[in-house]
Amino acid sequence: MTDRNVSAEKPEKRSAGIAAARLVRSGMVVGLGTGSTVAYTIKELGRQVREEGLNILGVVTSYQSEMLAIESGIPLTTLAQHQELDLAIDGADQVDVKMYAIKGGGAAHTREKIVSVSAKHFVVVADDSKMSKELDREVPVEVLPFAKELVVKKIRELGGKPELRMASRKDGPVITDNGNFVLDVAFGVIEDPAALSLQLSAIPGVVEHGIFSNVDEVYIGKTDGSVEIIKK
Amino acid sequence: MTDRNVSAEKPEKRSAGIAAARLVRSGMVVGLGTGSTVAYTIKELGRQVREEGLNILGVVTSYQSEMLAIESGIPLTTLAQHQELDLAIDGADQVDVKMYAIKGGGAAHTREKIVSVSAKHFVVVADDSKMSKELDREVPVEVLPFAKELVVKKIRELGGKPELRMASRKDGPVITDNGNFVLDVAFGVIEDPAALSLQLSAIPGVVEHGIFSNVDEVYIGKTDGSVEIIKK
Repeated sequence: MTDRNVSAEKPEKRSAGIAAARLVRSGMVVGLGTGSTVAYTIKELGRQVREEGLNILGVVTSYQSEMLAIESGIPLTTLAQHQELDLAIDGADQVDVKMYAIKGGGAAHTREKIVSVSAKHFVVVADDSKMSKELDREVPVEVLPFAKELVVKKIRELGGKPELRMASRKDGPVITDNGNFVLDVAFGVIEDPAALSLQLSAIPGVVEHGIFSNVDEVYIGKTDGSVEIIKK
Repeated sequence: MTDRNVSAEKPEKRSAGIAAARLVRSGMVVGLGTGSTVAYTIKELGRQVREEGLNILGVVTSYQSEMLAIESGIPLTTLAQHQELDLAIDGADQVDVKMYAIKGGGAAHTREKIVSVSAKHFVVVADDSKMSKELDREVPVEVLPFAKELVVKKIRELGGKPELRMASRKDGPVITDNGNFVLDVAFGVIEDPAALSLQLSAIPGVVEHGIFSNVDEVYIGKTDGSVEIIKK
């Protein structure tokens, strides 16, 4: 896992992120994802709020998106107040042709899943490099610290190779915004993401895994500056 | 949910709790459950450690069992050091004829499940009133506070009636030892506990539910002082 704060500026992330902002209309309550691509969406929505009178409420998925939304001037609300969101927009680490996604490189996938499942429509923004025929990236799994050993054992029984994600600006493991650990699990090619989702969810001590099966639409930024949109 | 600290002394809890302590041999690493019945087991094990030289290590499931084990003189270890326990002993709120159990009246079911699944053999101690043909008690579900509304909605879609467990010695909801909320969910008679387990585990924001399918043996204390043992 490389340091996510040193990734170079990528114009294809910018075009995907800004294109997806066009889905947002005044009056909407919008889930705001985490990561470098959706950061462009959040900044663009903030610009529209400040300069064009866009009237929305945001629901954040992490401290990162909260800080960026506040900085951008987007008024925030909570899932406790708005149980159904009109739209959620977020990045992804990988998306396959059936629109299953792997998320959680930023360790925010638990709240991201809760927010996206609370939305009527869930849009992923990604650069072209994230698209793949099949899912084969490591699956981030948030676990209760108390259960780490049990979850490691059960994941190995499922054929996965789990590794505890270590922090780089603190000693020891990464601690999520919920106070838990993250295991990055290599499964090779994931033949059946739906089945693996259920198996991972059933392990005691797993808070949430990074396989998403609720993506409705993907905005894919290309290196030529164009944005391809695919829908379920 | 009544206050769990004012329940009267019940001799059938005592006899079940003490009988199960006989399963423990020197050299074992033992999971120590939470609640009023297994408290007798913990106290009896502590007595054997102090008076009879019993040589065991305990792994606790809650602050309650930690405090009681320390007070009783049982040396403690952790799941990080001992990934496989020889035995776990715990109480239950209800056990059916197929040995499915509902736990979590004490809001400790998440750690209890992690500990019991880490054990080679899991024994439940209970008084006779906990035995039932079918499971029909409320199922405690530990949820991330951030996800409460989503989990409530998804549980209603499954036919459950969830209620947020409120605290009685603090304002607002009960907070678990893991920092989360508890929903007590009425499902009526649970026809298929295994299926409901998977459905509850798959809801984003559910940390752990109180249906246990890993009970190997039940020690049932009767009002006449006898203890019935049933095995899977």
